[in-house]
Parts: sequence; structure tokens; C-alpha cells
Amino acid sequence: MKLASLKDGSRDGKLVVVSRDLTRCTDASFLAPTLQVALDDWQRLSPHLASLAQSLELGSLPSQRFHEHQAQSPLPRAYQRANCSAYANHVELVRKARGAEMPPAFWTEPLIYQGGSDSFLAPRDPIHMADEAWGIDFEAEVAVIVGDVPMGAGPVEAGEAIRLVMLANDVTLRNLMASELAKGFGFFQSKPSSAFSPVAVTPDELGDAWDGGRLHLPLIVDLNGKPYGRANAGVDMTFDFPTLIAHAARTRPLSAGTIIGSGPVSNRLEDGPGKPIDEGGVGYSCIAEQRVVETMRNKEPQTPFLRFGDTVRIEMKDRAGRSIFGAIEQTVEKYEHNPVPEHRRGK
Amino acid sequence: MKLASLKDGSRDGKLVVVSRDLTRCTDASFLAPTLQVALDDWQRLSPHLASLAQSLELGSLPSQRFHEHQAQSPLPRAYQRANCSAYANHVELVRKARGAEMPPAFWTEPLIYQGGSDSFLAPRDPIHMADEAWGIDFEAEVAVIVGDVPMGAGPVEAGEAIRLVMLANDVTLRNLMASELAKGFGFFQSKPSSAFSPVAVTPDELGDAWDGGRLHLPLIVDLNGKPYGRANAGVDMTFDFPTLIAHAARTRPLSAGTIIGSGPVSNRLEDGPGKPIDEGGVGYSCIAEQRVVETMRNKEPQTPFLRFGDTVRIEMKDRAGRSIFGAIEQTVEKYEHNPVPEHRRGK
Repeated sequence: MKLASLKDGSRDGKLVVVSRDLTRCTDASFLAPTLQVALDDWQRLSPHLASLAQSLELGSLPSQRFHEHQAQSPLPRAYQRANCSAYANHVELVRKARGAEMPPAFWTEPLIYQGGSDSFLAPRDPIHMADEAWGIDFEAEVAVIVGDVPMGAGPVEAGEAIRLVMLANDVTLRNLMASELAKGFGFFQSKPSSAFSPVAVTPDELGDAWDGGRLHLPLIVDLNGKPYGRANAGVDMTFDFPTLIAHAARTRPLSAGTIIGSGPVSNRLEDGPGKPIDEGGVGYSCIAEQRVVETMRNKEPQTPFLRFGDTVRIEMKDRAGRSIFGAIEQTVEKYEHNPVPEHRRGK
Repeated sequence: MKLASLKDGSRDGKLVVVSRDLTRCTDASFLAPTLQVALDDWQRLSPHLASLAQSLELGSLPSQRFHEHQAQSPLPRAYQRANCSAYANHVELVRKARGAEMPPAFWTEPLIYQGGSDSFLAPRDPIHMADEAWGIDFEAEVAVIVGDVPMGAGPVEAGEAIRLVMLANDVTLRNLMASELAKGFGFFQSKPSSAFSPVAVTPDELGDAWDGGRLHLPLIVDLNGKPYGRANAGVDMTFDFPTLIAHAARTRPLSAGTIIGSGPVSNRLEDGPGKPIDEGGVGYSCIAEQRVVETMRNKEPQTPFLRFGDTVRIEMKDRAGRSIFGAIEQTVEKYEHNPVPEHRRGK
């Protein structure tokens, strides 16, 4: 089944079941008002959601048009998000750009960091940023939402906890990264709010493109309407999702609704790092990678990071060319902070 | 007012208002079933909670005995937790132990990292860990819960968003830290589930011990029943809470219910780092600091990290000697993972 959270003025949106072709949806809030509630009680509620999805396909219940721009991220806020760098090729490239060595352990042990999860962007909402000089970049990723995972779970148990799959735009502020990472405790300001695809789907919706650990389809990234990335999410994923989840659960349980992100999808070619699409390559899932390749070729990067007005679109299609998750499509806009006047400030 | 979340079998507990002396509580779930719901709609709900607290003090409504061991952490799970190292003295000491330099920027810009928030421990529940060799340590901290903070808020606006204050035990696995930090993206496995004090209080409950940014009282840490730390949380806090919150909100909004932790409370003495309590010092808020001091004195640490059966207690008392938040008191116990049998695994 396919699930979405419609904007309804609340913090968590309203749960709907979406038709396979993404054209229609039906209210599921009588079963569970929000997706988090459904995940909290998945064993009891998911069969009812699945039968709702079946009736929706048969046209045997009231439904409404599904508009992707009316969707929040499937979880508008989540209790946890762990982001990984499962495509070690990306890590190697970006570290090269920072002049940092790639330790050999990166090919044998997952790299994972705690991401923010309290305020996700809607998939069609702008990316508001105060300053272009922060080096605004996207990272196109695959992400899964898990149920409860006990501490110490192995990859088999971890894989069975995968409830939903979706796409992510992990917005990154490249020019804030170096000074933040130099402090040694990871990202904070350099990882602002992310966005996820309008729809999250159960693994069975993916057919044989999902092998239980990896999603074997190209991730379509367009920048300002032009093809930018077509890397296959099933290729060069050094660590599969069950391995990532088990790594995250080694010293603590993961609660239902935890989002595990793959990190930017990145394919390594036989003759080295990726080529841009206009040279017959698969392109990139973030601008940083292209800039590294440019630097390796020409000693300096040519492609700028995102500027106000730039639009990134992230989507994935099944083998018949139909959009699976709907599209993340976001334009960068200038943010102005207006402090609330003193007399209107709440306590 | 003082708020707690009682264990009731649900994931978020049941909201109660607790009497100032922590002996009695009254159900507040008819106003807001959970603390998160109260925080989501604080301006509307908090006056009602405050009047409930007033009636409880006057004895004019039904109440029950409040048992700290029946309390969850005030937010049993939260949408965000940002942990800081606001006591730069601690950072300098612990980095010395790792042989790492302390960059001068650490005294002028907050160090902040994204912490896990999906599965907090209850304040009297055991700390279950699979392996003593992980170097199990506590970190006794002060933490605040904020309301919505817009992106770009300055310290004044950030300070006004502070809703509640509590204590924290930020459990840390010291022997997993070095290899994790070496990867450059911060902690994950080395920061398992944390616990918070049984009760969270509004800043007005703290009287003049709270100056709007710092809490000027000793943090009482006992290890296996013996005094271990008495560092004053108002002393040597390099960055106050409004500064920490504003730093966290520079590139993204913070949602209601975000927890901001101070990092381990640490006082610097005129003649150098802290002395143990039995030498007339204020002691330590984590074992790592004591081990650093021991290493500086004797070339190697004597105090071991926590072993199975060890108990840490963290509390704070007002100037009249009354417990403000109740006590975190946790014993380390051996964890065994038992995978769910295949036939009982849910989808």
C-alpha cells in the first residue's frame, strides 16, 4: 500500500491511503489519525489499511483526487532519524574534496549519524535559507521507516522491521560543514530540515526492484528542469538497509517510526567516479560530488551550489515508467526572520 | 508548576501535575493526554495546567501519592534532542584524555550535536547494556524543553521559548567513542538511550536560582551511595541556554518539545581541574573527567567505568534542601538480546 499525510493545519497531517497510480486517495484517519499512530500499532492497524488500499484500487469506496503538493512528508515530524553514508563512493569523493583521507574501515563498517527529525519540509514546499553563501546543496536518497527494533537485533530481524520505503532530500549546507566537523561531534547547523517524498510505500509495492535490502531502480534527479542524476540506488550501495538498521540498534532500541536514510545515492564507474549525464554518465545525487569531479579534472569546481530560485526534483519510476513515490520538488527561497513582537510572544 | 508522565503502558505515559514537594500528583490527562500534546499547544493549555497545580497545592482536588519510580522521563520520546558541551572545562579535560587539542573556538562558539530521542529510559529504570567493555559512563546534566523556536531566532527570543527545566543522565559508552568520532560524523552507538528526572518544572519554580539562562545550584551526583559530584550548574557554564538554543536554531526551526541538554556540568577550580569530593573538591559529573584528572596525576586512570550492579543517582536540591526534580537513580544491568521467534514476528 501507499500512504501519505495530507496538510490539514495540524503538526502531523492526516493519514490517507493513496492509489497505486498516485491519482486518488482515501481518508484513513478513522483507523489512525496520523502515520505515527499507525506505526505505533502496526500489527493491528496495517491489515485494515491494506484492505482500505485494496478497496481504493477497486474503486469501491469514496475517494478524492490526490495532489502531491497537498502532502506533508509522510512523517511531518519523527522521533528519530539516522542517516547513513551507505554509498561509500560518495564518502570517498566528498572527503577527497575536503582533503580528508578515507579510512579503510569505511568500506567495512557503516558510517551513520543522528539527523534532525522534528521539522521536516513538505515535498513541494520551498527550501527557505537565509544565506546563499552557506553552500546550499541537496542529497537525493532512499529512506526506510522501521517498526520497533530491539537493541542488539541482527540484520535479519532488522530487515523484518522495515515498514515503509520513501525518497529523501537531505538538504545540506556545505560551507558550514567544515568548521562544524572540525569540532569533532558531527553535523548540526549544516544539516537543516529535510524533505521526503509525498508517498511512503510498503516494500511489496516495489516488486522485484526491492530485494529486502536494496532498491534496484535509478533515482531521478533534475536540476532546474534538466536531468542531473540517474544513479541506480541498487548499485554500489556498500551496506544494505538491514545492515544499517542493525548497526543503529547495536547499543539501543529503535522506536517505531525511526527513519533510516541511505545517504546520497552514488554509482562508481569502472573508469572512476561518475560522469555528468551530458557525457553519458549517470550524473550525481548532490552538487558536492559534481564539484569534486570537476576539481579532479580542472583543479576547481565550476558548478555552483543552489541559488535562490533554483529547483531540484527527485523522483523514482518503476520499470513501466510510473512514479512510485511522487516527486520531491523544491525551490530555494530567501528566508527572512521576523521576530514575534514582544506583546504577542507567548510564555 | 511541576509536570511528570506516569507509566501507564502507553508509549508517551499519562500527564500529571506534581505537587511542589513531590509527594502528590493529580491527573492532567483530561487537559492534555501527554506532555507532548501540552507542549504542542502550550499557550492555550499551560494556564489550565497552572491552575491545576495551584489547586493541588491548596489540596482542593483529588490527588494520589506521587512515586518517582512510577514516572517515565517527562517526554518518554521526543522529536528532537540537541546536546551541547556548554561547560567548556569538561570538553578540554576529556579531549586531553583522548590526546586531542582543544581549538580556541570552543570557548567562543557552542559545541552541539544531534542526540537520539526516540527511546528515553525512565529515571528509575536500569541501564541495560550488553557489554561492560563498552566503557559505560553517566553524564549528569541540566536540560530544557522549548516551545517552537523560529529559524534565526536570537538569544532573547530563544530564551523566551524555554518551557521546562529538568535533569538528564546522558549515558555514554566511552570505549565506543574514539572509533566512532574518528569517522568524523559524531556519536551514534556511543550515545545510547538517556534518562531524565522524574519531574520537569517551569522556570518560575526555580526562583532566583534560575537567571533565565543558567541554573545556579549544585548538581548532586552519588555513585553507589557515596557523594561523587557536587559541581554547581551555574558556574563555568560557558554558554547559557538561550545562546545554545539560538545556535541550534540558526539554520532551521526547532519544534515544540525539543530538548536542549547542557552537557556534563563541570567546574574549573582556580588551581586547575576539579578535585574529588574526599579531597574537598566538587567532584565530577561523569567518570571520564575523574579518569582524566587521575591520568594527569598518576599517568593512568584508577576509577573504572560503570560495572553491572553499579548505581548512579542524580538530583538537585533547592536552598532549603528540598528535591526539585526528583532523582534519576539507575543501576547498570546486563542486557541479553532474545530475538523474537520467527512465528511471532510481525510485519
